[in-house]
Amino acid sequence: MDTKQALKSLNNILSEKKKYNHAISLMHWDLETGAPKNSVNTTSEVIGFFSQKIYEIMNSEELDKSLQVLNKDIGDLDEVSKRIVYLTTKDKVKLNKVPKQEYVEYTKLISQAQNIWAEARKNDDFATFAPYLEKIIKYQKKYVNYIGYVNHPYDVLLDDYEEGMTVAKLDPFFNGLREKIVPLLDKIKKQSQVRVDFLKKGYSVEKQKQFSRDVAKYLGFDFDSGLLKESAHPFTLNFNKYDVRMTTRYMEKLFASSIFSTIHETGHAMYEQNIGDNIYNTILGTGVTLGIHESQSRFYENLVGKNKSFWINQYSNLQSIFPDNLSKVSLNEFYKGINCVEPGFIRVEADELTYPLHILIRYEIEKEIFEKNISISDLPTLWNSKYEEYLGISPRNFKEGVLQDVHWSAGLFGYFPTYALGTVYASQIFSAMNEKIDINQCLEKGELSSILKYLNENIHQYGSLKTADEIIYNLSGEYLNPNHYIEYLEKKYNSIYTDN
Amino acid sequence: MDTKQALKSLNNILSEKKKYNHAISLMHWDLETGAPKNSVNTTSEVIGFFSQKIYEIMNSEELDKSLQVLNKDIGDLDEVSKRIVYLTTKDKVKLNKVPKQEYVEYTKLISQAQNIWAEARKNDDFATFAPYLEKIIKYQKKYVNYIGYVNHPYDVLLDDYEEGMTVAKLDPFFNGLREKIVPLLDKIKKQSQVRVDFLKKGYSVEKQKQFSRDVAKYLGFDFDSGLLKESAHPFTLNFNKYDVRMTTRYMEKLFASSIFSTIHETGHAMYEQNIGDNIYNTILGTGVTLGIHESQSRFYENLVGKNKSFWINQYSNLQSIFPDNLSKVSLNEFYKGINCVEPGFIRVEADELTYPLHILIRYEIEKEIFEKNISISDLPTLWNSKYEEYLGISPRNFKEGVLQDVHWSAGLFGYFPTYALGTVYASQIFSAMNEKIDINQCLEKGELSSILKYLNENIHQYGSLKTADEIIYNLSGEYLNPNHYIEYLEKKYNSIYTDN
Repeated sequence: MDTKQALKSLNNILSEKKKYNHAISLMHWDLETGAPKNSVNTTSEVIGFFSQKIYEIMNSEELDKSLQVLNKDIGDLDEVSKRIVYLTTKDKVKLNKVPKQEYVEYTKLISQAQNIWAEARKNDDFATFAPYLEKIIKYQKKYVNYIGYVNHPYDVLLDDYEEGMTVAKLDPFFNGLREKIVPLLDKIKKQSQVRVDFLKKGYSVEKQKQFSRDVAKYLGFDFDSGLLKESAHPFTLNFNKYDVRMTTRYMEKLFASSIFSTIHETGHAMYEQNIGDNIYNTILGTGVTLGIHESQSRFYENLVGKNKSFWINQYSNLQSIFPDNLSKVSLNEFYKGINCVEPGFIRVEADELTYPLHILIRYEIEKEIFEKNISISDLPTLWNSKYEEYLGISPRNFKEGVLQDVHWSAGLFGYFPTYALGTVYASQIFSAMNEKIDINQCLEKGELSSILKYLNENIHQYGSLKTADEIIYNLSGEYLNPNHYIEYLEKKYNSIYTDN
Repeated sequence: MDTKQALKSLNNILSEKKKYNHAISLMHWDLETGAPKNSVNTTSEVIGFFSQKIYEIMNSEELDKSLQVLNKDIGDLDEVSKRIVYLTTKDKVKLNKVPKQEYVEYTKLISQAQNIWAEARKNDDFATFAPYLEKIIKYQKKYVNYIGYVNHPYDVLLDDYEEGMTVAKLDPFFNGLREKIVPLLDKIKKQSQVRVDFLKKGYSVEKQKQFSRDVAKYLGFDFDSGLLKESAHPFTLNFNKYDVRMTTRYMEKLFASSIFSTIHETGHAMYEQNIGDNIYNTILGTGVTLGIHESQSRFYENLVGKNKSFWINQYSNLQSIFPDNLSKVSLNEFYKGINCVEPGFIRVEADELTYPLHILIRYEIEKEIFEKNISISDLPTLWNSKYEEYLGISPRNFKEGVLQDVHWSAGLFGYFPTYALGTVYASQIFSAMNEKIDINQCLEKGELSSILKYLNENIHQYGSLKTADEIIYNLSGEYLNPNHYIEYLEKKYNSIYTDN
């Protein structure tokens, strides 16, 4: 087999894998957005079957041979092929360590577990979900041992979502954030509080839906290449840049939740929709790491959506849609209201300041799960005690506690820390972008396309072609630096809670 | 290979095929019910890939060998396995005659064409759809020649949807219907007409949606094992008895259309939902022929939904939902209104009496397409001239003419006649059932479950285990007999248009 043949063979296999994944993703999308209740078992079987197919082609001799040839001749390949070979080899080394039958059973398990979780959450019933969670953790622990680790078992899982991330790096990162955030939070608690009464009134769900669509479009989401639907936990799923689907959720008395969920997912979705056409149909045609992905969603959610300049342009429009609730609320009151700092139970509804503490709690619990033999039935208590410790509040039920996130039901351990990384990246990107274009002026004038253009050029177009480090370094001249985030928080919240 | 091994191998292959079909069906469902516009190309490619996989396993040596053994030892098999072997062998003989590449290209073509058609129909633009239709017909003609025929090329296509059906049988069948229906229609035209003004008022789409869901549930549709959504052309799609999905369409000024579309599809869907558990996960786990399938939808649409006894129970409920439109309309006026006979352009909105003429027109056009070399650009004219001839009306645009049905865009030539067959079967089933239970009394009392129970026991449970002929003969003591239908029409319409 020569290099050309090997490359052709590799691309064929990856293209086949992509098609199986397409079907699997559509089945997940369907299960999350309205499939009939009784369909779950059969659909899970079909998902299991396709996962097995993927496992088979990824374990084929043909792929082994192709990668062998290509890794030997790596110098002869173009930049795109090099990166494809590198990432496939890395995946394959991991995959080869997991016994086939266990892997297939596991994919069936998590597809069932997500539906069990959704029901359990609805019924506030941890006991029904617990045995599934136990099986998932059992598999994850086996997986950690199959892959192997040097310092901490949790490092294996962290690396799956953010290449090279370790407990040794994250412990000081989170400590640093906590040291700055907690004093700021204490200071704010002593200030007089901002008005939020108007956010808790009833907002028509139908009107929220229309506003969500309008905002997504205004930010730059392309509805010809995507959808906005509803699900229990908002998420974004991409088949390819021409089919990127996101969900949000609408609650009559939690109006701000739907707006900022939509803006958050729109940030994810626009990353995927603007991948370069040269790579979109390859394995590079998707966001590079979860941290960078989250930087895009948090950028839009917080640095755009919770920015006063954004509402200078949009607020009168919003007032005209909800006159009963907002006609007597000033722009300044609205801006302060949506940025109100208040320790709460639900991560996705947390303000910017307390948000990293929600992540810290999950980080510590997950670390413990993989360090020690925690009993599943103790998780709710552990969860609640940490909320008490860091946020001073104690969840009253499972729904606002341990059952709130979809992640564990999907086996996504090691995933949460990327939310904090993304939040920190977002501020770093804002600082760099702001040196080229006046972001706040763009927001005031409604020129959202200038912002999207910068992100397209510096981040989106590359998909997974460049690493997270390369992308961040190329645009900002430095690697991950939490100081931009800390400075941003201090400036923003001192202003909101001083002139109150 | 012994019989047991051969049977195991056959079942494995068919189970694999079922999983590929599951994915393909979900992609079609997705494309029809809201996938983003730009997703079509990629999704079509994935559908093509899975169709190829099905083609490969259905052409495998393993299947050949298994079927050889099983056909030799057919006497040793149980009833279910016998039927599976028979149907698979029949399919395979056909499939073997079509060159692989042509088949795969064709499946891609029809998946694209259905979206092109939906757009073309929306924009009343036949020219955009024409080249796709031309390619589809070209393939169908090649297909007819690959399969081969004795008397008429169209016989090949008819047999695909209704086993054993031929032009030689259908020509006298349709002539017979026409001879009875046309004089009845002429007689009715001379009577004073019934009120329909109240059906043309504006009916809130949101309330229509709720009523559609309520009616489906009332008839016996199980929402835990199915969905009701919207699409351009109503249809039912089944993954298996635990996941049966149907669509309808809502138009503010065509209220009756949504009700009767929903009731029609509910008839199809309940057939699928009530297949026996012993066969549900085999290839026998679906309705046996399109004619029998259509008998179930037409039974509910016409013999239940357009029956006065049904509305004796339901009308006051409907009045309370739409008081502005219906509070001053009597039950009798409503019943006559929904049974108004009036030649119209749209098949799915046709009354019971003119409906068979819509089918006759399609039957004649399709026969001509496969007999002669008709130019695609002549089809609209041919269509319109036949509407002029049989119904006395001429379509004013493509939407209400040649572009109205999804079938041709999906390659479903030879399919339309099954609608007429189903309509005739429905009356025959009604007569037989009525000897066991008083159907009208059940409807008046709201005992819909007695009706569904009869259908479950005599039709649904068997799936494809028994032939259409067996099913009809076993329940009625005779084979297809159009007289029940003619008698029903004469009795019903003479009553409506006499005491007017």
